[in-house]
Amino acid sequence: MEFGFTIADQDGEARSGVFHTPHGEVKTPAFMPVGTNASVKAMRPDEVKDLGFEMVLANAYHLALRPGVDVIEEAGGLHSFMHWDGAILTDSGGYQVLSLGKDVRITEEGAKFRASLDGSEVLLEPETSMDQQYRLGADVAMVLDECLPYPSDRERTAASMELTARWAKRCLDSHPGGRQALFGIAQGGTIPELRAESARMTAGLGFDGYGIGGLSVGEPSEVTLAALDASLSELPADKPRYLMGVGDPSGIVEAVSRGVDLFDSVLPTRIARNASAFVSGRRLNLRNASFAHDRGPLAPGCDCYTCRNFSRSYLRHMVMAKEILGLHLLTVHNLFEVSSLMRRARKAIAGGTLSELLDEVRAVEAAE
Amino acid sequence: MEFGFTIADQDGEARSGVFHTPHGEVKTPAFMPVGTNASVKAMRPDEVKDLGFEMVLANAYHLALRPGVDVIEEAGGLHSFMHWDGAILTDSGGYQVLSLGKDVRITEEGAKFRASLDGSEVLLEPETSMDQQYRLGADVAMVLDECLPYPSDRERTAASMELTARWAKRCLDSHPGGRQALFGIAQGGTIPELRAESARMTAGLGFDGYGIGGLSVGEPSEVTLAALDASLSELPADKPRYLMGVGDPSGIVEAVSRGVDLFDSVLPTRIARNASAFVSGRRLNLRNASFAHDRGPLAPGCDCYTCRNFSRSYLRHMVMAKEILGLHLLTVHNLFEVSSLMRRARKAIAGGTLSELLDEVRAVEAAE
Repeated sequence: MEFGFTIADQDGEARSGVFHTPHGEVKTPAFMPVGTNASVKAMRPDEVKDLGFEMVLANAYHLALRPGVDVIEEAGGLHSFMHWDGAILTDSGGYQVLSLGKDVRITEEGAKFRASLDGSEVLLEPETSMDQQYRLGADVAMVLDECLPYPSDRERTAASMELTARWAKRCLDSHPGGRQALFGIAQGGTIPELRAESARMTAGLGFDGYGIGGLSVGEPSEVTLAALDASLSELPADKPRYLMGVGDPSGIVEAVSRGVDLFDSVLPTRIARNASAFVSGRRLNLRNASFAHDRGPLAPGCDCYTCRNFSRSYLRHMVMAKEILGLHLLTVHNLFEVSSLMRRARKAIAGGTLSELLDEVRAVEAAE
Repeated sequence: MEFGFTIADQDGEARSGVFHTPHGEVKTPAFMPVGTNASVKAMRPDEVKDLGFEMVLANAYHLALRPGVDVIEEAGGLHSFMHWDGAILTDSGGYQVLSLGKDVRITEEGAKFRASLDGSEVLLEPETSMDQQYRLGADVAMVLDECLPYPSDRERTAASMELTARWAKRCLDSHPGGRQALFGIAQGGTIPELRAESARMTAGLGFDGYGIGGLSVGEPSEVTLAALDASLSELPADKPRYLMGVGDPSGIVEAVSRGVDLFDSVLPTRIARNASAFVSGRRLNLRNASFAHDRGPLAPGCDCYTCRNFSRSYLRHMVMAKEILGLHLLTVHNLFEVSSLMRRARKAIAGGTLSELLDEVRAVEAAE
């Protein structure tokens, strides 16, 4: 077995440790930058590594549509294709299918939808997804799940959660294992009892790790946290726990304090491309005219490439002139912020001071 | 005087040497990547330097409109603003004014046009341009010139060339000199006699170097070369000669063989953003479906970051998925190709073998 999860330190419910993969160790809690199309947007892979990231996420759903699983398999898999020798997790596409809204039909069999690129009809079954992800060669595959929109009623949520559990079983049965770990996904909408039940069912099947899915889809943050608590209460402590789609600083630290080990989100890279930067836990939009003459760095005291070398005035100019370099420089800074936050969280857990970091991000959140 | 031009080797009319500037030495013949808005598109400044470039071009015309000369002056000038410590040349905007077509009115006074960003009317006079460029702090400023569309008749061409010469005199009279060199621009359309006359008039005014402008605007390449020959015949041999806007490999080597020292062009960076790459002197479009499964490097044998690490298949995927990384990787390769070509040209001149390089690029051109 090339996988393993070692917990080195604990601080309350929080833990720090190492997730061992065939492509190296991932120090947890860890954030995975999102490389939907086999590229972390606006970044070279070596730059992603230099920022301290050890694992990235790619989307099997997107990659199966374009360039096609065969192209990546021929290249020797995703690592070689995208020139990333660290760990990779692929998501199955449950969340992407949700975004298709009424263009998708979910049946016991799987998810049937029109592929966005050429309009052809695609049936994505749990077995298809396992085959795709195995051939893509990620270190970690995710089961195919159904994600619900928020809000969804109890009946719908319960039925969906049970379908996800049946799909999870089919995934487990068809997954070859070996060089690829498989994570289950606990769903259950925003109803704590159902979250707990879904986590219990998923854990009962026995996966290498557990995603907590379907959160941060529009619900208030206290609802997210209650749902998260319910999920975590039923997930085994000795396996990695991955909160899917959460990437804001306070959301990350709240979840870390509850015992989450892995995160992914498009947030740091997407807001960068929308001219926004994380600065002291807040978001600054560089389009703001007040930055036109601001010769200071984006984030005072920040040691990233962007803050060391460029002024807010220059960054604003890049944004206003629609220069690609602006997208890159803001992405670098936002990823550096997240990477630094994860490093601080690991250090705080080791030192037993995570509550201080939590107080800090809560104070920023309250001041928003 | 912080400027100087030293010719070290000659091979026929071609020469290689060093252009000394307050921001370092520029080995000639040299290509200047274009950073219109104070950014070489899709590149970090340190990456531009790592590719071997010692001088870049920026456009005073664009920068005066956005972010405004005051913003850059406050930042301590262009070098500091864009984090580029090599040499910088700013173009005045004569060529950009040409692209405004009938929206610009050229009088003795200057060029009057509506600024593209907010629609306000701008009068760009030779004195304004000198003031702008001096405040921007480039190492080399270019006079304000009138560029003509191709074709233009003899009468129009002659009148324009004379206006450019009167403007050149006004530029010279108002330019403070010192830390900034000033280059004149020889015009004369595509009529060899007028090219020679314009070059003679410009040289007679006595500049630190000479641009050869208004070429490569749609005329056939033999017309370009005849016009270039006529210009060069009247420009002093001991000053740098800069062929404006030429960036294709054969165009560069033809001009080098005639005694040109400096080049700029958007071509390598622009075609990259249009999914095209220079490969063995030809252009390859990565959108071509034949590359979908091509696991080889973009240019076999090429040592650039892109070719060392990524396949044509991956690059095509980046292009098709509209990933920013694709634009970056193709730009890196195209600039590497141009940088390598300039290095080869300098070496060939030193070794007396430029004719071999010329034969090589001509053979590729003939096979197109």
